[in-house]
Amino acid sequence: MNIVDIILDKRYGRALTDEQIAFFVKGVTDRSIPDYQASALLMAIVLNGMNEREMTTLTLEMAASGEQNDLSFVGDVTVDKHSTGGVGDKITPLVMSISSSFGVKTVKLTGRGLGFTGGTVDKFSSVEGFNIDIPKADFPRLVNENGMVISGQTPDLAPADKILYALRDVTGTVRSIPLIASSIMSKKLAGGADAIVLDVTTGSGAFMKTFEESRQIADAMIKIGERSGRKVVAVITDMDQPLGRYCGNVLEMQEVYDTLKGKGAPDVVAVATTIAAHMVKLAGKAEGLSDEDLISECKTRLSDGRAMAEFIKLIKAQGGHVNDDGLVFNAEPVEVYEVKAPESGFIFSIKTNELGHCSVALGAGRVTKDDVIDLGAGIGFRKKRGSPVREGDVICKLYVGKDSKLLSDTKTIESIADRVLRAYEISTSKPLEIRPVIDVLGA
Amino acid sequence: MNIVDIILDKRYGRALTDEQIAFFVKGVTDRSIPDYQASALLMAIVLNGMNEREMTTLTLEMAASGEQNDLSFVGDVTVDKHSTGGVGDKITPLVMSISSSFGVKTVKLTGRGLGFTGGTVDKFSSVEGFNIDIPKADFPRLVNENGMVISGQTPDLAPADKILYALRDVTGTVRSIPLIASSIMSKKLAGGADAIVLDVTTGSGAFMKTFEESRQIADAMIKIGERSGRKVVAVITDMDQPLGRYCGNVLEMQEVYDTLKGKGAPDVVAVATTIAAHMVKLAGKAEGLSDEDLISECKTRLSDGRAMAEFIKLIKAQGGHVNDDGLVFNAEPVEVYEVKAPESGFIFSIKTNELGHCSVALGAGRVTKDDVIDLGAGIGFRKKRGSPVREGDVICKLYVGKDSKLLSDTKTIESIADRVLRAYEISTSKPLEIRPVIDVLGA
Repeated sequence: MNIVDIILDKRYGRALTDEQIAFFVKGVTDRSIPDYQASALLMAIVLNGMNEREMTTLTLEMAASGEQNDLSFVGDVTVDKHSTGGVGDKITPLVMSISSSFGVKTVKLTGRGLGFTGGTVDKFSSVEGFNIDIPKADFPRLVNENGMVISGQTPDLAPADKILYALRDVTGTVRSIPLIASSIMSKKLAGGADAIVLDVTTGSGAFMKTFEESRQIADAMIKIGERSGRKVVAVITDMDQPLGRYCGNVLEMQEVYDTLKGKGAPDVVAVATTIAAHMVKLAGKAEGLSDEDLISECKTRLSDGRAMAEFIKLIKAQGGHVNDDGLVFNAEPVEVYEVKAPESGFIFSIKTNELGHCSVALGAGRVTKDDVIDLGAGIGFRKKRGSPVREGDVICKLYVGKDSKLLSDTKTIESIADRVLRAYEISTSKPLEIRPVIDVLGA
Repeated sequence: MNIVDIILDKRYGRALTDEQIAFFVKGVTDRSIPDYQASALLMAIVLNGMNEREMTTLTLEMAASGEQNDLSFVGDVTVDKHSTGGVGDKITPLVMSISSSFGVKTVKLTGRGLGFTGGTVDKFSSVEGFNIDIPKADFPRLVNENGMVISGQTPDLAPADKILYALRDVTGTVRSIPLIASSIMSKKLAGGADAIVLDVTTGSGAFMKTFEESRQIADAMIKIGERSGRKVVAVITDMDQPLGRYCGNVLEMQEVYDTLKGKGAPDVVAVATTIAAHMVKLAGKAEGLSDEDLISECKTRLSDGRAMAEFIKLIKAQGGHVNDDGLVFNAEPVEVYEVKAPESGFIFSIKTNELGHCSVALGAGRVTKDDVIDLGAGIGFRKKRGSPVREGDVICKLYVGKDSKLLSDTKTIESIADRVLRAYEISTSKPLEIRPVIDVLGA
């Protein structure tokens, strides 16, 4: 077999055989295929596409390119959850807590975030004492005791995907349905879960900007799941505005805590309960409830203390500090600026990714992987899309940690505030109906 | 400027700006753009194309990436000739000789051949004493004395093209109209000629297999010529069978000599006189003759000794030996096999590239650049397409040099003979009309 022939086949729009795809992934992993050939094939895939079988084979081969997690110690159906990301996305701790209250066992492997507001690792790390670096050997004990474990100490899952992703990033081949779908699914499959609920975000703060694009990616991942024997449900959620009331690490964990006390923002509650319900269902813990009833039951548990009890158990099991006032944090957010409406009207649209970049500029996220995050930094969203505003109303509040150098740097804060304001479009007309959960596919 | 943005522009089908193309070629030449980015862009160009302006800019930038020949010492219009290659292509010495008889001055830079029957350098090198390595400093004297010079000592013309070509070869991006056209034209432009006649071969022995593909490449090169101020004429010639009576180095130079004695094969005469006529015309030496009359005049000079006189002058000027019997060669072809028709009928089709590979197997060409050529090896073509044959008639004769190891290796010769035979299709019906010159574009 010859990589040039494989490139030529895809160049001329032919479907690659399973053997050709296996040869490619193996050659990428052991570096016997040079980057310049891999990138030519990636561009040919981007422009000529892949069918379902090709995508599935690519996924399975990438999943098999490194270590594959064995979760059989759980002794039950394991359900994983994945989000394609966004601003203010604090869904993971909520759905773990809700589904755990139904007896769903979760092993959550998560990464450090790059860009926007930091990843799940950073959010949990903002809780004093919380140990996110749980070694694999401790998973069985923790799952047995608490039903849940979350760890940032991920093994080398799908190394072929890691190599290809780095190459795609510098060769203009990131956006491609088969490549995105197989990249996400290869890591999920190697992660070992039996079933997966995908939170496919869509809109100005998401990687996929349109519903149609999100639906295609979701469809592709569901098809890959079907063909590889995993149950996959995709929940398409709105990211045309930040999710909930805050972005930033301490700010979001505080919002998680408030949500579990029954004071959640409507969009956070809607997304979390829909995803949790499908996790419960896939795990076989739904006991004949309809989707609607199950979501309603999740809502009840989210606010009546049952999900909170699971959350506190998780935090404590991994060393996190909680007292009567709630979570104890490693940083303290200090409000530094109120962004005000320059005119009256309705919040019509929000450049959500711009707000994500502003949050990073405040210190809440990383631009390069060696950047140190200010866990206290972030943005509080006071007005959401469709909200009526009067001139001078506070739209957003900007926060930095109490030790931030930006505290005394008025000029930088003002320039960030200016950028935040420009991300909002105020109009005399209201936007069309906004649904936090747009669609559920594969259920 | 950023190479990833350039790749993305082409990925999404946008035309690149002149500045982007210049940035790309410069980055390829100085190696600041890594191969994996260059190959991704090449694949995007292959699949999304380039418009005339982009192709022309790419050509000019590649031409400017290294040394550019200055032929102003000639003091007259200089005409270059280029062939896209084939089996039995011995047109260069013929058209140089004919056009020189009209006072056209030619500086022919040529390369060593890889594959098939060796290049023009190898053919001239088969003449005893002939010095093909003429340094640039000697060009003015030789052109002044003989009107012609041919040299294999080519300077580093269009190094960007060399780098990109090597990359295309291993990334499935060779076949692409803008990339082929700009590659050929960049070397021609850097070569310094004012006008160029292109011999665009088409058919089973050519790089372009169909007339349509050849026409597109020819059109592209003519457009690039127009936009860069060079006159370009493209002659589309048939390569659905070998050209003339022989392939192989000594065999072809002997055929050149015989042709100049008035005993040329009809296809060789047709192609050589058409190309020579357009060279003469572009050089402004046609004195108001119609194309038809000019071709007819070229035919006369090809057989009446005038072209022969020019040829002998060129051979002698560069040290080649000629005596009363003709050219003196460095090798002596020995006939080793007669390939005979297994049935009666007409020669219907010929896998010409297969014959080229067989010729290489006999020793007439190189597979890798370090291979040593057997200048005496080759094939004699006794029956051409459309010829009636009876069972047992000789279709081809195989030759090796008198010192070849294959002389005693009957098994290898027989296996080559078998492969040669399988390249011929004998049928009860005659093929459609065969025209050695299919079309002339840009005239």
